[in-house]
Amino acid sequence: MGLLGDAVVQAVIPLAALVGIGFALVQWVLVSRIKVSNENGYSESLIENEEEGVDDFDAVVKCSDIQNAISVGATSFLFTEYKYLSIFMGVFGVIIFIFLGSVKGFSTQSEPCTYNPGNMCKPALANAFFSTVAFLLGALTSTLSGFLGMKIATYANARTTLEARKGVGKAFIAAFRSGAVMGFLLAANGLLVLYMSINVFKMYYGDDWEGLYESITGYGLGGSSMALFGRVGGGIYTKAADVGADLVGKVEKNIPEDDPRNPAVIADNVGDNVGDIAGMGSDLFGSYAESSCAALFVASISSFGVTHDYAAMSYPLIISSMGIVICLITTLFATDFSEIRHVNEIEPSLKRQLLISTVLMTAGIAAVSFFTLPSEFTLFNFGAEKAVKNWHLFFCVSIGLWAGLVIGYTTEYYTSNAYSPVQDVADSCRTGAATNVIFGLALGYKSVIIPIFAIAMSIYVSFSFAAMYGIAMAALGMLSTIATGLAIDAYGPISDNAGGIAEMAGMSHKIRERTDALDAAGNTTAAIGKGFAIGSAALVSLALFGAFVSRAGIKTVDVLTPKVFIGLIVGAMLPYWFSAMTMKSVGSAALKMVEEVRRQFNTIPGLMEGTAKPDYANCVKISTDASLKEMIPPGALVMLTPLIAGTLFGVETLAGVLAGSLVSGVQVAISASNTGGAWDNAKKYIEAGASEHAKSLGPKGSDAHKAAVIGDTIGDPLKDTSGPSLNILIKLMAVESLVFAPFFAAHGGLLFKIF
Amino acid sequence: MGLLGDAVVQAVIPLAALVGIGFALVQWVLVSRIKVSNENGYSESLIENEEEGVDDFDAVVKCSDIQNAISVGATSFLFTEYKYLSIFMGVFGVIIFIFLGSVKGFSTQSEPCTYNPGNMCKPALANAFFSTVAFLLGALTSTLSGFLGMKIATYANARTTLEARKGVGKAFIAAFRSGAVMGFLLAANGLLVLYMSINVFKMYYGDDWEGLYESITGYGLGGSSMALFGRVGGGIYTKAADVGADLVGKVEKNIPEDDPRNPAVIADNVGDNVGDIAGMGSDLFGSYAESSCAALFVASISSFGVTHDYAAMSYPLIISSMGIVICLITTLFATDFSEIRHVNEIEPSLKRQLLISTVLMTAGIAAVSFFTLPSEFTLFNFGAEKAVKNWHLFFCVSIGLWAGLVIGYTTEYYTSNAYSPVQDVADSCRTGAATNVIFGLALGYKSVIIPIFAIAMSIYVSFSFAAMYGIAMAALGMLSTIATGLAIDAYGPISDNAGGIAEMAGMSHKIRERTDALDAAGNTTAAIGKGFAIGSAALVSLALFGAFVSRAGIKTVDVLTPKVFIGLIVGAMLPYWFSAMTMKSVGSAALKMVEEVRRQFNTIPGLMEGTAKPDYANCVKISTDASLKEMIPPGALVMLTPLIAGTLFGVETLAGVLAGSLVSGVQVAISASNTGGAWDNAKKYIEAGASEHAKSLGPKGSDAHKAAVIGDTIGDPLKDTSGPSLNILIKLMAVESLVFAPFFAAHGGLLFKIF
Repeated sequence: MGLLGDAVVQAVIPLAALVGIGFALVQWVLVSRIKVSNENGYSESLIENEEEGVDDFDAVVKCSDIQNAISVGATSFLFTEYKYLSIFMGVFGVIIFIFLGSVKGFSTQSEPCTYNPGNMCKPALANAFFSTVAFLLGALTSTLSGFLGMKIATYANARTTLEARKGVGKAFIAAFRSGAVMGFLLAANGLLVLYMSINVFKMYYGDDWEGLYESITGYGLGGSSMALFGRVGGGIYTKAADVGADLVGKVEKNIPEDDPRNPAVIADNVGDNVGDIAGMGSDLFGSYAESSCAALFVASISSFGVTHDYAAMSYPLIISSMGIVICLITTLFATDFSEIRHVNEIEPSLKRQLLISTVLMTAGIAAVSFFTLPSEFTLFNFGAEKAVKNWHLFFCVSIGLWAGLVIGYTTEYYTSNAYSPVQDVADSCRTGAATNVIFGLALGYKSVIIPIFAIAMSIYVSFSFAAMYGIAMAALGMLSTIATGLAIDAYGPISDNAGGIAEMAGMSHKIRERTDALDAAGNTTAAIGKGFAIGSAALVSLALFGAFVSRAGIKTVDVLTPKVFIGLIVGAMLPYWFSAMTMKSVGSAALKMVEEVRRQFNTIPGLMEGTAKPDYANCVKISTDASLKEMIPPGALVMLTPLIAGTLFGVETLAGVLAGSLVSGVQVAISASNTGGAWDNAKKYIEAGASEHAKSLGPKGSDAHKAAVIGDTIGDPLKDTSGPSLNILIKLMAVESLVFAPFFAAHGGLLFKIF
Repeated sequence: MGLLGDAVVQAVIPLAALVGIGFALVQWVLVSRIKVSNENGYSESLIENEEEGVDDFDAVVKCSDIQNAISVGATSFLFTEYKYLSIFMGVFGVIIFIFLGSVKGFSTQSEPCTYNPGNMCKPALANAFFSTVAFLLGALTSTLSGFLGMKIATYANARTTLEARKGVGKAFIAAFRSGAVMGFLLAANGLLVLYMSINVFKMYYGDDWEGLYESITGYGLGGSSMALFGRVGGGIYTKAADVGADLVGKVEKNIPEDDPRNPAVIADNVGDNVGDIAGMGSDLFGSYAESSCAALFVASISSFGVTHDYAAMSYPLIISSMGIVICLITTLFATDFSEIRHVNEIEPSLKRQLLISTVLMTAGIAAVSFFTLPSEFTLFNFGAEKAVKNWHLFFCVSIGLWAGLVIGYTTEYYTSNAYSPVQDVADSCRTGAATNVIFGLALGYKSVIIPIFAIAMSIYVSFSFAAMYGIAMAALGMLSTIATGLAIDAYGPISDNAGGIAEMAGMSHKIRERTDALDAAGNTTAAIGKGFAIGSAALVSLALFGAFVSRAGIKTVDVLTPKVFIGLIVGAMLPYWFSAMTMKSVGSAALKMVEEVRRQFNTIPGLMEGTAKPDYANCVKISTDASLKEMIPPGALVMLTPLIAGTLFGVETLAGVLAGSLVSGVQVAISASNTGGAWDNAKKYIEAGASEHAKSLGPKGSDAHKAAVIGDTIGDPLKDTSGPSLNILIKLMAVESLVFAPFFAAHGGLLFKIF
């Protein structure tokens, strides 16, 4: 037994969650002090340290109007999306119930447990029911996470713009605090709902922990399937608008980004919120829920589960609780312990957040491992038993955490224009768009090397110490600082929107410069966030894969058997199929957007001159319709593949598919997201012209800059649609297989049974 | 025992090889009747059916000059390349000898055989020696294959141009016959050298077939390592020149492709011969040698090997012999049984070659399987025994053959501008280069789906029937029509060169149109050839992987062990690392070329006006130097990875690396090569303007065309450097692991032994 009693553990987890929620509310209150109103009712406090157009009431009114339009657009899109998804969730919930219920022919008889055959466990029908409930809870929490994130982001964007009038430091804090609201709400909510579900389910399951944690895996599935549609739908929405706006606005009409004359500009800003904020929030919540579920499931069939050591069993949740506290302290370093006074300090300040949270968390992990875990315990490792010590677990969680930092810093190196890789890509624009694309693709390919070695090393160490439980805990380690990760990640789209609002509201060049600086740092942190999401997805999928294999009762997944190998090669193909679908979707939707924007420029007199207003709503509608329609085929591919592979070809082939899509998808995802990030920042590098070299490539409108814009446009769907969606592909297929494992093990492999 | 006696088998194989060589010589004589001379000594026969400038002596002299320049450039590059490679071969031969010799401490004692412990086998030192000899023989044959191919291609290019004066049909036959010379020489030489090596080695080995076929695997390694450098070096050479020439010529100076004023134009044409001809010849020879070696090695440890059934043992070689005969008949359909009278008939005629050879070969396989194999025999399947019937083998070989056809036709569908995928890509050029690139990448990703299913099905069927022997034979089935495959593949660069020569020699627009039509079909067949090369590489690698696993004495390769999994994920990363290197190399070399071409246009007065000659030699030198320097890092990555992984991490991790690089590399290779092919043909589609749709995008110089040229340029390194080199990456790492398996099994895994 560990040193902490069950009662303390019972109290610590919800307490940490409530502290997280409280902290988020405090941040929100601080942000809400910045008054935006279109009734001339803004607070006098705004004007106290007058700097740059602070007394321009007109700009404030405009800001408020634009914020309103963005918020209304985003809310209405999300509501439409959720309406369709609720139907999907209902149908899929029924499928889960029927598939899992059929495992024992809908029998209501209790049966001997699998891992502890002396005891009686609850009937399969109960697992079907509770898995379905957990699935719906996960879906709901995911929706809530995405929606709240979007709400705070659209609440914060105009406030950041207004704060930029007072200086870059104030604007930074407004954006960062808002990101923190999202980060803490999401981490705390995820933990709280999971904790409560376990406790409610336990009232029925009692001592049947096997069944309890088996059905809890539905929570991960629900979270991730919402995330899939959120990422894909949001990704298509935002990039259709962005690419469409750029192709006509920047390339044909030569008007700046976010120019209010561009009819697609509101859709573009809405897109940032539904894609980069709501989609990413759902995605990371999914990773968090899945790695917790995988760890809990594997633990439930370890000696913790058999001896009912509640405190040790709750180790994953206590790690997350500790994470919330550590992130809280970390946030204060950015908002209270220091202040940004210069543009150059933004990126280091954000990077420092990662480092501080990682260092502090390492100590936190040591404390949690020492206090909650027994000094030695036993894990099941695909049939064999394995003795594990508590300090082994400390290393498992820590290596995941530090691998995340390595991935984050590598991503920064390859996507920030402060270093030579992006500068080389910018330089290649001299000879045109073709060399820019060749160098950018090569950069993305190269950027996978270090993250893959970091992931491989985490896997080796954590597996050697604690088998699949170690992998799940490494994943959770990487995600333990999720609140900070999300805060700096959400900061990006908020700053992007703030810049857009400044441009549209016609604010001064100086203000626009400040928001641009915030945005450039945001681009890099967004890439870092994606790196984290992918790295954690790889570990999570592997943990889920291990849990699936345990639950399906397979002892080996041998590449030398044809069933596994064909799964492996087809699985490795799926990320390509999926990317082909999502990229083509963005392309087609963007073409429609281009036509609409061109049509408006051609038919609305005075639009180009700024005397007439464009029809923003039509562009919003095109993005909405396209994304809702186009998210169905890739969604179906991901959701149906495990069902088809498992039912027709059986668990071995499905195991191959999961392994193949994992090892291939992680490469495609990392390279796509870094290539896109690098192109974006290569363009910004030329535009900013901060060095002699950059000046020799610019200014805006030069041939090199035009080539850079082409690269940036190509990178949009790579970095914001297909790349990040691949995380979900690999995670979701794994968690779905895990949930359906009892069905596949009982009835799967139809095709091989027939022939 | 099968129905054919050993004596018949002994006679049939060399006979088929000699027939192939004889047929190649006949084709060569037929091509050589077209006279090209700069001494006014050309035959009167040329002028007999006067059509288009046939009496223009000046053009003939020019053609001859250009041909000479290309031939000299290609020969001198290959000699330089071979000079460096011979040093590498020597060093690597020593490494093989030392590594393999050290397995039993350089002992000269015979020892009990592994698979038949009752008998005595030759010492490990003998295997080290003969493996090294086989390695050198393979390297030599590969060099010869590439060199002969280049010679005949540079001999045929101007002749094709001259024949184009008489009509498209005659030019087609000249190009196709020349391709056939290469195809038959390569297939027959490969078979003959392998056959002779086996017989010579047998004089020492006697009844120790285990050792005999173990050392023969060195032949595959030699072939493939030359192919690696040939493909990478040639690929960098050709694309540096091509991209460099296009960036200045087409984009900046607005002069047509292959314009003699462009200083890089000779280097570009030399590149076609050293990259697409010599490189591809070595590549396919490598595949052929490896699949034969894999099949022979697996067979040697089956009941054939144990009972010394020579005829059955020679089954792989007799399949190849039958292939030569079938391809001979197939060739006559293109050259003698029908004649091309219209441009539209070119592509169908080439496609028909594939279909005819596949149909005929299916009957051939049935005959060979029936006559040489015993009706039932036993194979070893990783420890277990497996009973196999002769008709099982028929299905294994045939499914490989037909999978090749499916891959070929799928590739054609995705890269020919006769179908909607390429037309959609062309259409996306309307909105600029960015959408063109997005659609092209999506097309490439999508094009992997069917080939992967075809490969997966071949693997499943052939493995189920005959374990790893079945896979090796499926690979050999796909390669059994290699002579035809190479003929239509080599036809492409020959036509490309012919077009270049026509342009440079200032021939009429009508002749240029004819060579352009030949070239367009050649683009598609080149893509088909690459599809074949990749598909067969996937099967070959898997067969080699199986042979490696057998030889290393591993019973399972379990993804659930961390050693294997980290190998899998790092292996899946290698194709990206490798592509990053090769693409960056092409990019950097192209930048140098651009600078040189610009320098010449700026400093040589009268160059643009056509009154002064450019300095072709300097551009040739830049390509040569760049490719020789830049091929070292990717070459080292491929050659060293198995050595490092095997020595430090052991055979399980290495097995994971091989499986990972196989399943990931095949996707990257197919998508890269099809994306590039599609961009190239989308550009040609706009240029040709053959339909209303195409006309609406053109003409040359329109915005849509400019966007298409950018796509084409990006595609160049993808389809001709990084994509096709990946075949070799996956094959070579597998065959190298196979050759070094005894060493790794004895001394590998140092790192795990230390910790």
